[in-house]
Amino acid sequence: MEKLSRNSRVVAITKILTENPNKVIGLNRFSDLLNAAKSTISEDIVIVREILEKLEMGKVETIAGAAGGIKYIPGIENESRRKFAEDICEMLKDESRIVPGNFIYMTDLMYNPQIISKAGVILSSVFYNKEVDYVVTVETKGIPLAYEVARNLGIPLVIIRRDNKVTEGSTVTINYVSGTSGRIQQMSLSKKSMKAKSKCIFIDDFLRGGGTAQGIKDLLKEFESELVGIGVLVDNIGVTQKRVDDYISIVDLRHLGESKDLEVRPSNLIK
Amino acid sequence: MEKLSRNSRVVAITKILTENPNKVIGLNRFSDLLNAAKSTISEDIVIVREILEKLEMGKVETIAGAAGGIKYIPGIENESRRKFAEDICEMLKDESRIVPGNFIYMTDLMYNPQIISKAGVILSSVFYNKEVDYVVTVETKGIPLAYEVARNLGIPLVIIRRDNKVTEGSTVTINYVSGTSGRIQQMSLSKKSMKAKSKCIFIDDFLRGGGTAQGIKDLLKEFESELVGIGVLVDNIGVTQKRVDDYISIVDLRHLGESKDLEVRPSNLIK
Repeated sequence: MEKLSRNSRVVAITKILTENPNKVIGLNRFSDLLNAAKSTISEDIVIVREILEKLEMGKVETIAGAAGGIKYIPGIENESRRKFAEDICEMLKDESRIVPGNFIYMTDLMYNPQIISKAGVILSSVFYNKEVDYVVTVETKGIPLAYEVARNLGIPLVIIRRDNKVTEGSTVTINYVSGTSGRIQQMSLSKKSMKAKSKCIFIDDFLRGGGTAQGIKDLLKEFESELVGIGVLVDNIGVTQKRVDDYISIVDLRHLGESKDLEVRPSNLIK
Repeated sequence: MEKLSRNSRVVAITKILTENPNKVIGLNRFSDLLNAAKSTISEDIVIVREILEKLEMGKVETIAGAAGGIKYIPGIENESRRKFAEDICEMLKDESRIVPGNFIYMTDLMYNPQIISKAGVILSSVFYNKEVDYVVTVETKGIPLAYEVARNLGIPLVIIRRDNKVTEGSTVTINYVSGTSGRIQQMSLSKKSMKAKSKCIFIDDFLRGGGTAQGIKDLLKEFESELVGIGVLVDNIGVTQKRVDDYISIVDLRHLGESKDLEVRPSNLIK
């Protein structure tokens, strides 16, 4: 390939970095692809880093050593973050979301890539320094959000099933008490799905009593693994006695009994 | 904000475009954010477009008119595409993937963001010109791939459940014959999940007899909507009598009866 201009090189570098969040990429890869000396690529990277930081669009970190290179940490500017959380609050206040049984319909939000990709950046930003091995969720509504967090952290997703599937091979199954139904439910996970001694975070749509999170802690013990963090889009702060205490949310909601009144506001995570 | 250099502007434009695939973004947004005239931004966009096309990393299209602007269509270079499909074939050939009942374990592939993000670009590339309203899948294994396709197309995801959930409000439920089990199963979809007269594509991990796809066609009729395309990661071409005929896959697999021999190769979609 002929020599490219700096303008062209920084476009290509930005594209590759944003598509590979939290992955160390050696300068050789850029050097080979863009037909430029490593010293030139290093100068390009300074430009990319500076403008992304200035616009609060993420960070580019340098990793020294033989296996070194650079990695991109997704970010979202504080104002967009706040506006995003406020928009979610507005959407949740819509009375037509209350469905029989006094639940809040939020499936449309959880399956909307424009919303979930931003929520994923906000939640994953808390876990970059924690050396997490897997993002875990329970089917079904939290899967897109958990997937986004896994993608941002550059690690695999693990989805716990509510029943055994023939395509999963041998599974480990536990019983737990669901906060939603108050009933005993099951969680199953394929034995092939996780290496022993892993650190996991649990990502979900909604936290109520924390029964599911407690179930996941128990299930992970069967895999000699550990839950090191919990992140949800919505925390039901009306439920004060939770079985887990260390978690983050994007918005906090208090659903006032049988009426349709909702109190909903950005969480402490949103400055 | 002070004036930025062209180098800095093209980085920011690339970042915003790649984060908003298939969405029309007006030049005003770039002009305001980057404090530059629209004519300057237009020149920046030419640079971004040219290098992305040269490296086969996607296209930047211009949409004329009052609601016009530019939009980014994700792409993947032909060589990476072929290598990707060949890598999937290699992974699937691993004998330890055969689980009791003669199924192939591929959950690890379906939940790996590095794999699924590429598969999502390849599958979505077929549907950009089809004016699709929703990407539809059935829980659970195909959800990350369907989500990636939805994100690339800039449209919402719809997940069909296998049972009714209290949090979904009123649902429509149909019965269908599963190709995997040969048994009658159910599919449920919340009435709130889709506008009438929508065009949908179905994305999944694996196509066997097409029973699920046929079930989705029937369910969509209940929503006065239509299935206009099907895309899967793996087509089991060993099953020759399928209930659907118009679909695309990334790899084709033939599982030789009760033995552990697999024939697996890139599909016709991969050049």
